[in-house]
Amino acid sequence: MTDWGARAAERLKALAEASEPGPGVTRLPYTPQHRAAIDILSGWMKDAGLAVHLDAAGTLVGRLEGPEGSGTFYLGSHQDSVRHGGAFDGIMGVVLPILAIEKLLAGHVPLPFSVEVLAFADEEGVRFPTALVGSRALAGRFDPGVLEMTDNGGISLRQALCDFGLNPDAIGEIARPSQAALGYLEAHIEQGPVLEEEDQALGVVTAICGIERHQITLLGETGHAGTIPMGSRRDALVGASKIVTGINELANSVTDLRATVGALDVHPNVVNAVPGQVRMTVEIRSPIDATREAAGRDLAAMARNAAVQCSLALEIERSYSQPAQACDPALVKRLDTAVRQTGQQGLKLPSGATHDASAMADLCPMAMLFVRCRGGLSHRPEEYAAPEDLGRAVTAITHFLAQY
Amino acid sequence: MTDWGARAAERLKALAEASEPGPGVTRLPYTPQHRAAIDILSGWMKDAGLAVHLDAAGTLVGRLEGPEGSGTFYLGSHQDSVRHGGAFDGIMGVVLPILAIEKLLAGHVPLPFSVEVLAFADEEGVRFPTALVGSRALAGRFDPGVLEMTDNGGISLRQALCDFGLNPDAIGEIARPSQAALGYLEAHIEQGPVLEEEDQALGVVTAICGIERHQITLLGETGHAGTIPMGSRRDALVGASKIVTGINELANSVTDLRATVGALDVHPNVVNAVPGQVRMTVEIRSPIDATREAAGRDLAAMARNAAVQCSLALEIERSYSQPAQACDPALVKRLDTAVRQTGQQGLKLPSGATHDASAMADLCPMAMLFVRCRGGLSHRPEEYAAPEDLGRAVTAITHFLAQY
Repeated sequence: MTDWGARAAERLKALAEASEPGPGVTRLPYTPQHRAAIDILSGWMKDAGLAVHLDAAGTLVGRLEGPEGSGTFYLGSHQDSVRHGGAFDGIMGVVLPILAIEKLLAGHVPLPFSVEVLAFADEEGVRFPTALVGSRALAGRFDPGVLEMTDNGGISLRQALCDFGLNPDAIGEIARPSQAALGYLEAHIEQGPVLEEEDQALGVVTAICGIERHQITLLGETGHAGTIPMGSRRDALVGASKIVTGINELANSVTDLRATVGALDVHPNVVNAVPGQVRMTVEIRSPIDATREAAGRDLAAMARNAAVQCSLALEIERSYSQPAQACDPALVKRLDTAVRQTGQQGLKLPSGATHDASAMADLCPMAMLFVRCRGGLSHRPEEYAAPEDLGRAVTAITHFLAQY
Repeated sequence: MTDWGARAAERLKALAEASEPGPGVTRLPYTPQHRAAIDILSGWMKDAGLAVHLDAAGTLVGRLEGPEGSGTFYLGSHQDSVRHGGAFDGIMGVVLPILAIEKLLAGHVPLPFSVEVLAFADEEGVRFPTALVGSRALAGRFDPGVLEMTDNGGISLRQALCDFGLNPDAIGEIARPSQAALGYLEAHIEQGPVLEEEDQALGVVTAICGIERHQITLLGETGHAGTIPMGSRRDALVGASKIVTGINELANSVTDLRATVGALDVHPNVVNAVPGQVRMTVEIRSPIDATREAAGRDLAAMARNAAVQCSLALEIERSYSQPAQACDPALVKRLDTAVRQTGQQGLKLPSGATHDASAMADLCPMAMLFVRCRGGLSHRPEEYAAPEDLGRAVTAITHFLAQY
C-alpha cells in the first residue's frame, strides 16, 4: 500500500534542492530555481495524468479534463519561498493535490468535473514589491502597472517574465470565466502553533484575516540625557512604549484580534540623548472586520493619549487595509467532513496570513486546509510538517474531491 | 562704561567662525579650526595681560603670575564642540574668565595668587573615543594608552598631537602639583531649562551627577505577525516597552534622578514580524550615588520582571559607571555670594552633564557656574545665551576672584 505521506515528504525534499545556496530554501519567481521546480513538478503532474502548461504569469497548470461543460475545480498554492525559508510553505499545497489526484485515479474514482493543480510563481512578494500575480491574473484582477516594478537588481517584472520565456502582454487573457470556476482549495502549513497545541494534524480555515497597517510618527524633542529634567522632557520613545504596551494589552483581551508593533525606529538613537522622534508600524489582523476596525480606532485613541501625556506631536496614518475573506460555508462543511474522515476533529481556525486563496476568492468560492507544522515555525529553514500529517492531508483532499 | 556682556557675545561670535562649514559650529580637537581658535584666544589672553603657552596636550594656557608661592587658581573649559553644535558650550567658559580678569585688572584689583585660564582641546570626545585629555593630564590622571586610539580617518591621537606640533610623550609632565592648586571654576551654559524656568540668569552647581549605563538585550522569538496567537508570543519589543515606561515612571517619582532609554534597536524590525530581539541602553544619572545605584538595582528587577512576563531571555550589563563629583562646599559658598552680588538668587542645581570640572576635581576643589541658555538647548546650532547673562557671569567671576 502506498505511503502517501512518505511520498509527499520525499517530493518536498527533492523540491527543496531547487534553491539558491542555503541555509533553508530560497526560490524566487522567474529564476533558475523556479525553472528547476517547474521541471520537477511538470514530471509529477504528467505522471499523475495531468496535461501541463505554463501560463503567461508563470503559473504551472496541470489539468485533468472532466466531462464537457462540467466546470473546473482548482487546487494549488505558490512555488516561491522567502529568503532562507522552509521546504513546506506554499509548495506543499502543490505537491499534495498532485498526489491526491494520483490516489483518486489509482482508485478508479471518476471526477464529474475538470481539476486544475496550480503552482503560482509568486505569493511571497520577496523579489518584486507586489505579490499574488498569478492568482490575481486567474481571477481577472491583474494590474498591468505592476509589470514596471523592479527587483533589487533593477530588473522589471516585465523583463523577468520575458527572460523566463513568457509574454507579459498576454496575462490579461488568462482570466478564467467565473461561471465555470467551481471552487478553489489551498492546502498550507498553519505557520502557527494552534494545531500543535490542540494535538490536531489538520485544521479547517474559517476565514483569511483582514489586515490593516498604521504608520505612526511621534515627534518630541531630543536633548541631553543628563541635563533635561524628567518633567521637561518630550521623550518620543516613552510615548511609543505606551502605545506598544497598550495595543498589546488590547489584542490580548479581545477575541480574534492580533496586533503587532513590528518595526520601531528611534532618533537620534544614542545612549545619552532623549529620543526626539520615533517611527513605528502597527499591524492589526482579525477574521472579523468590525473587530479589526474597532481596534484601529482604539489604537488611534491610544496614540493620541500617549502623545498628550508625553507632549508629543503625533502623525498616524492607516497605510494599508484589506478586508477579511470568509471561506465558503459549503466548501468549509465539505472539507470538515473530509478531515473528520481521516480521524481528525476538523478544528476550525482563521488564517492570520494572506494566501493565494485571498486572490482566488475573487474568482470562486474558496477553502483552505491547514497542516500542523512543528513549533508553529515558518519562513525559516527549520519549517517542518511530519510525513504522517502530509499523508492525512492527501487523504483529506482525496475525500474532499471524491465527495464533491 | 564697558558692556562686558556685549563683548563676550562678540567674542563668541568671532570664535564661532573657527568652524567647519555649518550648520552650527563644528570645531574638533587638533584641527585647523582648533588652531584658528587658539590664535584668536591667544590674542585676547595677551591683551588681558596673560602669558600664553600651549601645553603638550593642546591645552591653551593663559597665566597671570601672582606673588611667589601663592598657588594657582584655575578657570576654563573646553574649546571643542560637537558636530553642528553651538557657539557657547565649552568655549564660553574660556571667553568669560579672560574678560573677568581684564575687568579686574582694569579696576586695579590685585589678586593674591596666580591665575590660569585654560582652553582644553577635547572634552566632547567626538573625534576620538576618549575625552577630557587635557584636564586629566593636568590632574595627573592621563592614560597614555588613549594615544593609540584612532579617529574615523584612522589617525591616532598620538599622530594628531604630533601633526599639531605637540609632543605626546611630554603629556605626563604637565601634571600640576596639587598642593599649589587652589581650585578650579568652570562657567558653562546649563544645557537644560531649569534656570530659564526659574527666571534666573546664573546658577551655582552643587555636584556633577554620577552616571551609569546599562546595556540590555531581550531575546524572544520572531514569527509571522498574522499566524502567532497573542498568547504564544515572545515579543521582545513588548518586554522592552515595559522597561522603558517603568524606568521613566521611576525617574519621575524619585528626586534627583534622571533615567533615559536613549537607544533601542529592534530585530528583525519589519511590519509583519513579531520582534524577536531588542537591544537597548539605559542611562541613569544622579548627584547622589546611592540614589543612582538604587535605581540601577530597580532597573535590573524591572527588566527581570518584564522578561518573565513576556517569556524572554534577558542579558543586562552595567557597561559604565562614574560616581558623582560634589562641588567644593567652600567654593560653592563663595560662588553663591558672588552670584547674589549680581542681583541673582544663587539658585543651586546639579549638573546632569559631565564637564572638565569632573576631571579637575582630581587635582583640586572645583566649582561650576551655570549660565541660562534659551530653551535649555545645547549641542545644536540654536544654542544661545543672552549678552546680559554673559555680562552677569563676567561680573560674578570677577566678584568670585576678588573675594577669594
